[in-house]
Amino acid sequence: MGFLVLRELVVVWCILLILLCCSIEISFGSTTRHFKWDVEYMFWSPDCQESVVMGINGQFPGPTIRAQAGDTIFVQLINKLHTEGVVIHWHGIRQLGTPWADGTASISQCAINPGETFDYRFKVDKAGTYIYHGHFGMQRSSGLYGSLIVEVGEGEKEPFHYDDEFNLLLSDWWHQSVHDQEVGLSSKPFRWIGEPQTLLINGRGQFNCSLSAHFSNTSTNACTLRGDEQCAPQVLRVLPNRTYRLRIASITALASLNLAVGNHKMVVVEADGNYVQPFEVEDMDIYSGESYSVLLTTNQDQSKNYWISVGVRGRKPQTPQALTLLNYSPTSQSKLPILPPPITPTWNDYDHSKSFSNKIFALMGSPKPPKNPDRRIILLNTQNYIDGYIKWAINNISLLLPSTPYLGSIKYSLRTAFDNKNPPENFANDYDVMKPPINPNSSNGNGVYMLGLNSTVDIILQNANALAVNVSEIHPWHLHGHNFWVLGYGEGKFSAKKDEKKFNLRNPPLRNTVVIFPFGWTALRFVADNPGVWAFHCHIEPHLHMGMGVVFAQGVEHVNDIPDQALACGLTGKRFMKKTKQN
Amino acid sequence: MGFLVLRELVVVWCILLILLCCSIEISFGSTTRHFKWDVEYMFWSPDCQESVVMGINGQFPGPTIRAQAGDTIFVQLINKLHTEGVVIHWHGIRQLGTPWADGTASISQCAINPGETFDYRFKVDKAGTYIYHGHFGMQRSSGLYGSLIVEVGEGEKEPFHYDDEFNLLLSDWWHQSVHDQEVGLSSKPFRWIGEPQTLLINGRGQFNCSLSAHFSNTSTNACTLRGDEQCAPQVLRVLPNRTYRLRIASITALASLNLAVGNHKMVVVEADGNYVQPFEVEDMDIYSGESYSVLLTTNQDQSKNYWISVGVRGRKPQTPQALTLLNYSPTSQSKLPILPPPITPTWNDYDHSKSFSNKIFALMGSPKPPKNPDRRIILLNTQNYIDGYIKWAINNISLLLPSTPYLGSIKYSLRTAFDNKNPPENFANDYDVMKPPINPNSSNGNGVYMLGLNSTVDIILQNANALAVNVSEIHPWHLHGHNFWVLGYGEGKFSAKKDEKKFNLRNPPLRNTVVIFPFGWTALRFVADNPGVWAFHCHIEPHLHMGMGVVFAQGVEHVNDIPDQALACGLTGKRFMKKTKQN
Repeated sequence: MGFLVLRELVVVWCILLILLCCSIEISFGSTTRHFKWDVEYMFWSPDCQESVVMGINGQFPGPTIRAQAGDTIFVQLINKLHTEGVVIHWHGIRQLGTPWADGTASISQCAINPGETFDYRFKVDKAGTYIYHGHFGMQRSSGLYGSLIVEVGEGEKEPFHYDDEFNLLLSDWWHQSVHDQEVGLSSKPFRWIGEPQTLLINGRGQFNCSLSAHFSNTSTNACTLRGDEQCAPQVLRVLPNRTYRLRIASITALASLNLAVGNHKMVVVEADGNYVQPFEVEDMDIYSGESYSVLLTTNQDQSKNYWISVGVRGRKPQTPQALTLLNYSPTSQSKLPILPPPITPTWNDYDHSKSFSNKIFALMGSPKPPKNPDRRIILLNTQNYIDGYIKWAINNISLLLPSTPYLGSIKYSLRTAFDNKNPPENFANDYDVMKPPINPNSSNGNGVYMLGLNSTVDIILQNANALAVNVSEIHPWHLHGHNFWVLGYGEGKFSAKKDEKKFNLRNPPLRNTVVIFPFGWTALRFVADNPGVWAFHCHIEPHLHMGMGVVFAQGVEHVNDIPDQALACGLTGKRFMKKTKQN
Repeated sequence: MGFLVLRELVVVWCILLILLCCSIEISFGSTTRHFKWDVEYMFWSPDCQESVVMGINGQFPGPTIRAQAGDTIFVQLINKLHTEGVVIHWHGIRQLGTPWADGTASISQCAINPGETFDYRFKVDKAGTYIYHGHFGMQRSSGLYGSLIVEVGEGEKEPFHYDDEFNLLLSDWWHQSVHDQEVGLSSKPFRWIGEPQTLLINGRGQFNCSLSAHFSNTSTNACTLRGDEQCAPQVLRVLPNRTYRLRIASITALASLNLAVGNHKMVVVEADGNYVQPFEVEDMDIYSGESYSVLLTTNQDQSKNYWISVGVRGRKPQTPQALTLLNYSPTSQSKLPILPPPITPTWNDYDHSKSFSNKIFALMGSPKPPKNPDRRIILLNTQNYIDGYIKWAINNISLLLPSTPYLGSIKYSLRTAFDNKNPPENFANDYDVMKPPINPNSSNGNGVYMLGLNSTVDIILQNANALAVNVSEIHPWHLHGHNFWVLGYGEGKFSAKKDEKKFNLRNPPLRNTVVIFPFGWTALRFVADNPGVWAFHCHIEPHLHMGMGVVFAQGVEHVNDIPDQALACGLTGKRFMKKTKQN
């Protein structure tokens, strides 16, 4: 299994790329990192089978951005697609003062038209492990994603030690094109996208062959890879007796994942760009939109190699584990591990998942939540029908984004741009979350939760039974523009009286993404202190695409200097034209 | 082979559709025909194999528009695609006074964004057989097309008699998605789209089976169709001893076609919405973008049925004939013809094609061309390279459309919106059109031929050898906003001195589309009397997409009231914003 990574070539290539596409300006006390990115479709073989992927500068996944806290990132995004608009969301970056750079089509900006350029310029104020990705239609699923790593600022230190680091961006891959997936989801009868064909680590996976075939009793073929294939695994070459930081992020379209390293434990130290109280695990669950840093100490037999494995949780897995090697130097990377890859916990062992979630606490000294909320919004997560089409909905409203982005339409009071009615703050008292909806009919909507600037908001994410009996799905929820404190998880229907008392207000972790378990609830709190309009949504791509999200707005009157580029469509575009003609 | 067309159901369905989607307002002396069209992708089986097609109101091909000369067509087009813009071009309609409704992205309007509506409102001033289709990227190839039939105005008469009519819209179909075709064409190495899998008549064809299998010696299966399938042929049921008008239009992406009706002759009476001197043929060639009306008299044995066949010309055919039946009433339509389908002339029998083209003359009394041109533009058609990517080019410039549509940028003098240099009016004197280009390197450009308003322009379309030795392709050229007179065709390099004398100024046919034959030239003349910006391009979809077109502008200063919708992008969009802020 000689998968030799052509390190030298890669290094030269990266230097060339950096010279071409990234320039760094350092001015008084702050650095601007400048990138020029072409987004276009290209042929690529993420899992040894050729597909069309959405790449950046000819790369898949897109180039990794590395910066220091306090830097300004300036990405000039050129849309080289033929007929599609595009945007990029900087997942986990709060966009303080630059809400128009959040990269959410219909929310923070107009999609960038083919041939046009958009300037994403924003500060990365906080060290951590972040992701960037498409946020228009289901373009993220086409491969439009990459890593954004923010190191601590000059003279700052992380609250833990490590010798070196690796970046593991996890995703899932389908052979059906995303365009066709979108058509299926919008069809009657509904066509579900199914389980992914392949799991990818840094955009690399193996379909129809296995790196660990010799351990299995099945007829799967062993992979015969030279190492320079687009699908060849990226091996983690380590020195013995060192501590490595693994930056692990999941940008899956659907799959909840579990990651383990054979014979090694991991110490979790960061979640979504926030430090957590270190805790040791044998394996870790990770949901779409989440990121973690774990420390791994290379304290095992250095004459051996070890499997790193990633498998599916929360859905009956029909997708083989993604694998790569932890390769102890100077052991050859062609030497296979002696033991088979770690076994992913049973897909429906939710106790295992909950146990992991419940171990996450904020590092001492982290900001604490305000004692009491100013407002509580309860969001019921359901699967529904609209005119016989399957949708996902929140409080019985399926989000159908308007064609004029909210940031502009709220700023300029264009009242016809979206539903003016406030969306519901709760659901019917007698709704039985343990059963399929009695009346599954829902409606489309695009109203906005208008939040008081600097108010404290509690959100109760309430899960429920889907359309089929005894089915309740996992939904990882991601909030734009903020971190929130995770106050607690619970089973069944949330009861203010009973459950509120159990909220963790002492050391709740700060996150930007949190899961709701099947038939359960998750409580979170945040301070609406970031003027702008922000999506809050299930991070499963087809769920969001079919309506599983809400929109928060706060202090938009304080947002000034929205760039024209972000407004050049829909009613904001027309408003300017009308005014011009009047004058 | 019982392909029963469920006539009754279809009729009821059509009435319902008309009630839902089309309303007719008749005001003093003029009728407005109002349509509401949703454009969206859907699953469909044009050739008995499921594909994703771009449909209108759930139909493929899109609904046929029928109107009378003088009517106003008002189509409210709603873009229900998820991430793609869209436009519709009304092919053959001159758009007198409404150049913004020509439906060419980057030329006459901004592409309509997802979720947005565009109002196409224009007059159909001239009776004839027209087409409408997408004109953004290669969306036309995705199935975004339909027929637009304009009957003579109230009290007017066609210059020929017929009892009834049928509409035959011809197209070609690929199983590879158009998105993937686009990626292949823009890749290095280049990936050609190949020959179509299937030819379609009114969106219906049969892949992997044949209606006439029993006539062939090959192992092709006979089709077993009930008649209500999306791919079941639409049978032409006729009465004996009647005259039928067949309105035949080709909207192929690539294929040049030949149509014949077993045992029947046809009399050609109309070409591209212009009457021609009637002439009789056994079969007829038709190129993409062309339309014809032919009269067919049902003077054969009425106890039999006859094949209507459509086959490929001008490229080595790898696509089976499209077939349907001319079914004499009361003969059962399940009765197969006794003779095999008419044989399509050999693909490279260009003499046959030229003979057909050379029979086309304007009907007596048709407008005649001005005696002399004010300007002559010679356009060399070549295949080229740019940075190793294969392109098509005109006078060594490959058209790469700007992101701001010309109509707005010329109207508002936004000089940075496109190349200000005039594109070349000719090519090098010593260029050998019979050989591959000595220097095949080309460059992208988007300059405009600025034409004097009401000036007479001659165009010499000069064909040449492609990149490969001894290959010269067919290019059917289509002019927007005008008809032109076809003055003549010739072989080899055009020589003003020698060839001009042979121009037909007496009765040249008016067309909007004309072919250049391999290694030949075609001369045409038109009067630039329609203020606006107009595309002139090869109608082969991948050729246009890869640069084979030019842009003409004339009298744009006289164009007023361009709707905001057409301008809400690129520099025109920004211009309005800037002005608003200044005021």
